[in-house]
Amino acid sequence: MHAVVFGNVTAIIQRLYSRRSLYHTRTKDLKDFIRVHRLPKALEQRMLECFQTTWSVNNGIDVSELLKDFPDELRADIAMHLNKELLQLPLFESASRGCLRSLSLIIKTSFCAPGEYLIRQGDALQAIYFVCSGSMEVLKDNTVLAILGKGDLIGSDSLTKKQVIKTNANVKALTYCDLQYISLKGLREVLRLYPEYAQKFISEIQHDLTYNLREGHGADVSRITTQACIYY
Amino acid sequence: MHAVVFGNVTAIIQRLYSRRSLYHTRTKDLKDFIRVHRLPKALEQRMLECFQTTWSVNNGIDVSELLKDFPDELRADIAMHLNKELLQLPLFESASRGCLRSLSLIIKTSFCAPGEYLIRQGDALQAIYFVCSGSMEVLKDNTVLAILGKGDLIGSDSLTKKQVIKTNANVKALTYCDLQYISLKGLREVLRLYPEYAQKFISEIQHDLTYNLREGHGADVSRITTQACIYY
Repeated sequence: MHAVVFGNVTAIIQRLYSRRSLYHTRTKDLKDFIRVHRLPKALEQRMLECFQTTWSVNNGIDVSELLKDFPDELRADIAMHLNKELLQLPLFESASRGCLRSLSLIIKTSFCAPGEYLIRQGDALQAIYFVCSGSMEVLKDNTVLAILGKGDLIGSDSLTKKQVIKTNANVKALTYCDLQYISLKGLREVLRLYPEYAQKFISEIQHDLTYNLREGHGADVSRITTQACIYY
Repeated sequence: MHAVVFGNVTAIIQRLYSRRSLYHTRTKDLKDFIRVHRLPKALEQRMLECFQTTWSVNNGIDVSELLKDFPDELRADIAMHLNKELLQLPLFESASRGCLRSLSLIIKTSFCAPGEYLIRQGDALQAIYFVCSGSMEVLKDNTVLAILGKGDLIGSDSLTKKQVIKTNANVKALTYCDLQYISLKGLREVLRLYPEYAQKFISEIQHDLTYNLREGHGADVSRITTQACIYY
């Protein structure tokens, strides 16, 4: 009888401490990893900060793990609610219900700490990004080309062709930034399923893009030409 | 001595309670997630019900996680046992042993709570579904076209071409339904590996389909024509 009572109390106390204990275990894992691989101090600092920030946002709860056994229909309803800001862009206005739900299921969240780069010039573009909060700058050769804030969309036009898109600038966080992104791979897959919307998406994305990161797109070329004029 | 006995008893009781404690932790995670993202009450209700149902089915055990390190041969034996009902359909009679085992490894289970939609009209079809238990209705413009029950297969013919299949009706659960499904992507991959069976599959699937969800297939067109006759 005593054992049962004691077991129950233990279980309750364990539950109270389980989240905190998970945090300490993960921190220890991370520190062990850093020590084993002798990572430099600066990298260690960034890793620990990133871990703490992620934890403060999600409290150690892995949402995709939590929701993975839910049926698609319910997962889509949840995803539609979580991603409603991004999906309310004019770009997505003409997408059908099914198409929006498919898109909502592939939207992922991320964040960027002050001073960290989201994109480096010349990298292959992997996704289109939506700024949920915070402030970022688009940089090229130490010149600030644009400042991005809440509600801004960055990426590229001509996303549907299966060609590699090289980025034409750096994108760096000025403050802590919450982001949502749609991978190009996932986007192409959804647009393949909804070809009637794909046409509209292609023609409309350029209007919704705050900054077009595609190397060699119209604005970029004209800017380079202007620069060339200045040089000569 | 007392401490050792007491510690052992505690450990045993802890083990007894560990599954229950996991249930409470997950419930708490889910409630935290709902609170943080301010999900509407109706969605919260559906999520909690869904979580409880899933738990009552799988007891919190993630089968794919549990089996992921097992060799393919053993995993296939397990999968063949778990999915024997679906694989006993006449459709799969002429499939070779290897083909059946490949199929068994891509069969997934899902469920649908009463009133929830499995498929919405106009969505791109992603899988063929097999009803293991429960009852569903096929709906179009508020008209019930079919009632599905245990052993019924829904999906589409002409699955092997890489074209998008739009669904021609809603499928909604009337009772709690256990389902198994094979994603079209996985199915195409397996049929590519077994081309001799692929031919048979294509010609036979229409006989085994309880309801063909493909927009514009024969039965669908004739039904529309009949309706048109009634209207004029």
